[in-house]
Amino acid sequence: MPGRRVRPAPVSRRARPSKAPLSREVIVDTGLRVLDAEGLAGLTMRRVAQELDTGAASLYVYVANRDDLMAAMLDHVLGSVAEPDDGIWRERLIAIIESTVAVMSRHEGLAFVALASAPTGANALRLIDRMRGLLADAGVDERTVDWAVELLYLHITAAAAEQSAGHAARASGTRRLGQAEPVAGRTTMTAPARRSGDGDTRASWAVRALIDGILATPAR
Amino acid sequence: MPGRRVRPAPVSRRARPSKAPLSREVIVDTGLRVLDAEGLAGLTMRRVAQELDTGAASLYVYVANRDDLMAAMLDHVLGSVAEPDDGIWRERLIAIIESTVAVMSRHEGLAFVALASAPTGANALRLIDRMRGLLADAGVDERTVDWAVELLYLHITAAAAEQSAGHAARASGTRRLGQAEPVAGRTTMTAPARRSGDGDTRASWAVRALIDGILATPAR
Repeated sequence: MPGRRVRPAPVSRRARPSKAPLSREVIVDTGLRVLDAEGLAGLTMRRVAQELDTGAASLYVYVANRDDLMAAMLDHVLGSVAEPDDGIWRERLIAIIESTVAVMSRHEGLAFVALASAPTGANALRLIDRMRGLLADAGVDERTVDWAVELLYLHITAAAAEQSAGHAARASGTRRLGQAEPVAGRTTMTAPARRSGDGDTRASWAVRALIDGILATPAR
Repeated sequence: MPGRRVRPAPVSRRARPSKAPLSREVIVDTGLRVLDAEGLAGLTMRRVAQELDTGAASLYVYVANRDDLMAAMLDHVLGSVAEPDDGIWRERLIAIIESTVAVMSRHEGLAFVALASAPTGANALRLIDRMRGLLADAGVDERTVDWAVELLYLHITAAAAEQSAGHAARASGTRRLGQAEPVAGRTTMTAPARRSGDGDTRASWAVRALIDGILATPAR
């Protein structure tokens, strides 16, 4: 009954539901929550286990180690990349690239995982296949497509890593890496660039330039 | 006298030369030696101090912290980027880009420092100015040049980070980040790409595609 406060009946600890069963999915979800709350340095197997009310040893049934966990977290978030329902190949490709950068940079450190390892997760491979298909729709030959998806994925991970480092630095109020000021579209690089377009405008120009370059440069 | 063994005369400990004076340069050189010998995880202020036969506290007169040290190490190595003596703007630009990737990827982790912070070191700024001048020589307008050097520097740091992660993984025999296999030109991404050009060929195609894209895409 809304508006009435009911004192909850006492529940014996023995009557509590047993712990939720562990699974790779549950561990990945929990890992993302720990990462978002406590940052990269706070993400330890022990901390994730604690959050799941278990011991770290129990996690190793489902994930090999922290690196494996982070790779699984990366691939999990890549599952939420959006593709528009309509549009020509170029619009769709740009949307996929921008959505991937956004999704990857939302969680600290995941872009660095992507940068340091080849994409092998199911969602990463699905994304790359989708980019490959769109470039083929554009009439790009097969070899150029192969090289182009590498270039695009490298750019995506780098742009996400850069943004993610900026987020982390702003969130913590400290400089995590390097002495220089936190990156926000590398505004310290070019005073004129700062005046001539914000970070989003420049990021979207970069994607257009990449695509134009791919179209203009057949692999030989 | 060559060929003759001379037993060295005993030297009193008191007669030893006093320790070499500390300086930012000496600390940076030592940091690079420690990084190369012991990897990113082994690079601590304490370890660098030990190598210089002093205490960590003495280093803080010259470098603010480990992040500052790494930024200084990055800028130091950028000082050795080579530019050819002749050639048109395109050849020179390609040479600078490729030399920067090579130099930055030679020491584990430095590319990640570059990726996570805006370039503010003297050598980084000099490089960016040089790329800016070459693009202007090519007739690229000023705003496009501003955006283009950002894109090129991002690509350079990403390519170096990718290579550096591959070096580190191969050197240690382990996988440092991510579960996937060490990156060597992302060969797991595309089986066909593996057959159609080695990592160097693909890397050099990527640089050409970037430059073509910059020429084809004026900033608006």
